[in-house]
Amino acid sequence: MSSVNNSPTVIKCKAAVAWGPGEPLVLEEVEVDPPKEMEIRVKVVCTSICRSDVNQWENKAQVDLFPRIFGHEASGIVESVGEGVTEFEVGDHILTVFIGECQNCKHCVSGKSNMCQKLGLERRGVMHTDQKTRFSVRGKPIYHYCAVSSFSEYTVVHSGCAVKIGRDVPFDKVCLLSCGVSAGLGAAWKVADITRGSSVVIFGLGTVGLSVAQGARLRGASKIIGVDTNPGKLEIGSAFGITDFINPETCSQPVQQAIKELTEGGADYSFECVGDTGVVTTALQSCCDGWGLTVTLGVPKSKPEVTAHYGSLLSGRTLKGSLFGGWRPKSDLPLLVDKYMNNEFELNNLVSHDMPFASINQALDLMRENKCLRCVLHM
Amino acid sequence: MSSVNNSPTVIKCKAAVAWGPGEPLVLEEVEVDPPKEMEIRVKVVCTSICRSDVNQWENKAQVDLFPRIFGHEASGIVESVGEGVTEFEVGDHILTVFIGECQNCKHCVSGKSNMCQKLGLERRGVMHTDQKTRFSVRGKPIYHYCAVSSFSEYTVVHSGCAVKIGRDVPFDKVCLLSCGVSAGLGAAWKVADITRGSSVVIFGLGTVGLSVAQGARLRGASKIIGVDTNPGKLEIGSAFGITDFINPETCSQPVQQAIKELTEGGADYSFECVGDTGVVTTALQSCCDGWGLTVTLGVPKSKPEVTAHYGSLLSGRTLKGSLFGGWRPKSDLPLLVDKYMNNEFELNNLVSHDMPFASINQALDLMRENKCLRCVLHM
Repeated sequence: MSSVNNSPTVIKCKAAVAWGPGEPLVLEEVEVDPPKEMEIRVKVVCTSICRSDVNQWENKAQVDLFPRIFGHEASGIVESVGEGVTEFEVGDHILTVFIGECQNCKHCVSGKSNMCQKLGLERRGVMHTDQKTRFSVRGKPIYHYCAVSSFSEYTVVHSGCAVKIGRDVPFDKVCLLSCGVSAGLGAAWKVADITRGSSVVIFGLGTVGLSVAQGARLRGASKIIGVDTNPGKLEIGSAFGITDFINPETCSQPVQQAIKELTEGGADYSFECVGDTGVVTTALQSCCDGWGLTVTLGVPKSKPEVTAHYGSLLSGRTLKGSLFGGWRPKSDLPLLVDKYMNNEFELNNLVSHDMPFASINQALDLMRENKCLRCVLHM
Repeated sequence: MSSVNNSPTVIKCKAAVAWGPGEPLVLEEVEVDPPKEMEIRVKVVCTSICRSDVNQWENKAQVDLFPRIFGHEASGIVESVGEGVTEFEVGDHILTVFIGECQNCKHCVSGKSNMCQKLGLERRGVMHTDQKTRFSVRGKPIYHYCAVSSFSEYTVVHSGCAVKIGRDVPFDKVCLLSCGVSAGLGAAWKVADITRGSSVVIFGLGTVGLSVAQGARLRGASKIIGVDTNPGKLEIGSAFGITDFINPETCSQPVQQAIKELTEGGADYSFECVGDTGVVTTALQSCCDGWGLTVTLGVPKSKPEVTAHYGSLLSGRTLKGSLFGGWRPKSDLPLLVDKYMNNEFELNNLVSHDMPFASINQALDLMRENKCLRCVLHM
């Protein structure tokens, strides 16, 4: 039997509410409903900021989804559980996940997909269960984001969108595994399955790209080429395993050509971590005939169509996408947390800034201006 | 020691010469040079006609490559061998292949690519060795096609572009394994590696698509959906394993929607065998989230760019191309010939027409008008 906080009531707490696209968030006192069936209410301890929080906050195409509480990379403590929840108890430490795992649908039972048909990526700003919100401010509903909404002292998530972690796991580091770092490591390990001695090119050296680099280094890739327009990425990239750096703005030839020369015909693997479909095309052109694999991880802000010359495919290349690095959140994420706790990979130097929750607008600005890796907000 | 036809001389023979794009071929007396170093001269016994012969013959963008001898699906007998050839002897039975295998370059030794760096797809109408032709007519050089040019009683090919076959193998059937049938079987078996009980959709039920269907059936796919605008393909498709047929011209909803309904969310595998990059997009949309794989085999006549919405990739789909079904011609083709000889798959009912070589223009018309599967020409 789970320990249940009997008849939990509405909580009043501080949340950073977005009232309109790109408008500074406002720290408001909000009301957080009790968790419904199979949901849990979580006291957020730390949340980091991901590029997609910023992109969606700035997205003028979704004005009808404001006011909204963003944030999806978070760690916290279960405050109360809804009816039917047996997996979590009050006081459990957890990570939130932006795609859930019901462990029951065709995809979850397949063992080869993280596209849960019940708790998949939520885009309408409501809870999966009843298509309603659990937040309100002065009586007005506040939309969720990715069924997580961690820019709040308390939030409600489906129990399928949370993963239990040990009590010794540091909240302020492990929140990075909720999205970006796991996406990068999974792209390298699970999706591409990088082999020893191979050549890898990574477009975009943000947190995701650096995590791909770390994943590639740990797999024994012999050449890891980083591509970024920010020259400052050379130094941080090297710390994560980058062996060669190309700045497209100062490169005297097309990037794909420079990469072909560095790799004697093209890289074994290329990764798009920018969020630009034009870069996906370049990434595909940068890998080799015969077995070259391009993994696209980024979510583009514009031009959603990827284009590829049929010849680049016919000559044996593969183009593959992945969300959350292909990991099944409940089945796979605990293994990643264990690996982190065993010091098998780095998280600490991906946290470029620690800040109090109240400084969230400053943190968003840092991300918007490409001046940070991960800002971790302490609630 | 190989048995060598010492000092072979120029051969005069009949060849079907294309003098201009789409102009009827002319049966001319041509001169065929002796084979040079590492080349063999072959008496063609049978040649079938592939769609790409027709497409390239009609291609107005390559007017400078006429006169030309097309044809690349062929079986024959070694007439003479050039210097250094030890693999073949005069009298050996062979299949021609349009991509060679030097067995020495990075790709050939990788064991995972058929993109030979030395004898890869030849596009300039000349021999790999010296960038010259071995054919002439009234003193004028005639361009080759795909380094094979089998629309001739005799041709010269690099020894890396031929595969020895047993003397009991029927010339008039096995020539189909030179290209189209092998491409389809390889896409199903080697590239997609179709698993038992899976769902498959095939766009285009020509020889290549029917070979994918046969490959899928032999792998135990439980649902094999054929898509073709020709209603006549329903019957022949059924003979090759098609379980469901969709005619896009009479389907009341978008094809990808109909397929999603038939497969409860999308097929496990989709194959583009039309040669239309727009159909590649539809094929990608027709397969399922999570693990859906689209294999593109066709060479488009126009619009060489494939477009795909990033979301269809991010949700776990893979887009992969393949040439010659991913088979390494020398290493893998003999195994396919053995399987055919063991009655493990069908070739005979893919031969819709047997004709004398002199009827080649009639055969080209049948292919142009989509009125045949494979026409086999007997020299």
